[in-house]
Amino acid sequence: MRSKIIHDGQKKKASFIEEARRRQIVEGAISTIASAGLPQASLARIAQDVGVSKGVISYHFAGKDELIQQVVNALFAETNRFIKARVDRAPDAPRRLRAFIEASFEFMAANRANFVALVDIWGSFGSPEAKRRFNADMYDPCRHHLEGILRRGQDSGDFRDFSPGTLAATVQGAIDGVMLQWVFDEEAIDLADCAAELVTMFDLATRRRA
Amino acid sequence: MRSKIIHDGQKKKASFIEEARRRQIVEGAISTIASAGLPQASLARIAQDVGVSKGVISYHFAGKDELIQQVVNALFAETNRFIKARVDRAPDAPRRLRAFIEASFEFMAANRANFVALVDIWGSFGSPEAKRRFNADMYDPCRHHLEGILRRGQDSGDFRDFSPGTLAATVQGAIDGVMLQWVFDEEAIDLADCAAELVTMFDLATRRRA
Repeated sequence: MRSKIIHDGQKKKASFIEEARRRQIVEGAISTIASAGLPQASLARIAQDVGVSKGVISYHFAGKDELIQQVVNALFAETNRFIKARVDRAPDAPRRLRAFIEASFEFMAANRANFVALVDIWGSFGSPEAKRRFNADMYDPCRHHLEGILRRGQDSGDFRDFSPGTLAATVQGAIDGVMLQWVFDEEAIDLADCAAELVTMFDLATRRRA
Repeated sequence: MRSKIIHDGQKKKASFIEEARRRQIVEGAISTIASAGLPQASLARIAQDVGVSKGVISYHFAGKDELIQQVVNALFAETNRFIKARVDRAPDAPRRLRAFIEASFEFMAANRANFVALVDIWGSFGSPEAKRRFNADMYDPCRHHLEGILRRGQDSGDFRDFSPGTLAATVQGAIDGVMLQWVFDEEAIDLADCAAELVTMFDLATRRRA
């Protein structure tokens, strides 16, 4: 019995260390993709940037495809966690929508490499199937989160009558499209001004008029 | 004198044929990138899809980089020409803004391959310099066109006080971001509904209130 507990403890510790190592490699991959571009981000180059041997990456990931998949998961998970925490603290639907937009832009401003890498990854799905899978795994949850906010605002009488699905796509689209221009040139886009304009605009666009 | 005219006529004809051939290769490259993905769109594969030898492509373009540059130029030129023709026919700033948004979505719907290819190209600039150049060559003109529409609407008293540059970035962003989701999955996004929602929204967001 005693030895089983020790064994479980060791397994837990090993898996904790493995998890930390995987996370370190994923973070390193994001920064290599952001600085060198996705095609140039070979496993060898990522390993070098992280400061481990290529064998360590191969031990943790089946190949570049699996690593990139984990990068995508991490990019969306971090962003969504940040946004959700801010949305959940807002007391009603109009302020939840506002929190969604503001948190999206604040997270962007603080994590530029994540979004530079994301734009490269957007362009890397060759097949229609890979594109659809990315949409289903990553964009559907974002749009559903927004749709939920919008629907509850209609139920509470704060928002006018509109298609929550369509409006969710336009909110997510406006955030992504501004981000894209900012990824191309930081100097060309003032994120704070754009966030403020989008907050005003989507407030005007969703409110029920008296 | 006569022979010079003949010679000029022949040169004109030759350059007309060369121009047509270059255009054919650029159109072929767009369709190969859209169906196979940018990394898979080698000059050999594009040549095969167009039905010419690889030597013909090499005769007209210095390499894949120059061909892709011409693809980018063609993608933006075609889109902008279509949008500008529609905008120029509208009688005032509010209807010019509406025409800009509607024409963008109509052109998208009719030219899906162009936008599938464009998203791949968005993700293909490794260096910050290449990204900035793309922004300066391609996005600055789009935003300036929009800024002009917005400024004239402020001058005429149709539009409220806002930063034309910021609003131009959000209009272009909303169009691009919705397009992106539609590139990932045609079934997930209704372009016509999104266009109508964005027209309403930007109208509400720009109008001067009485």
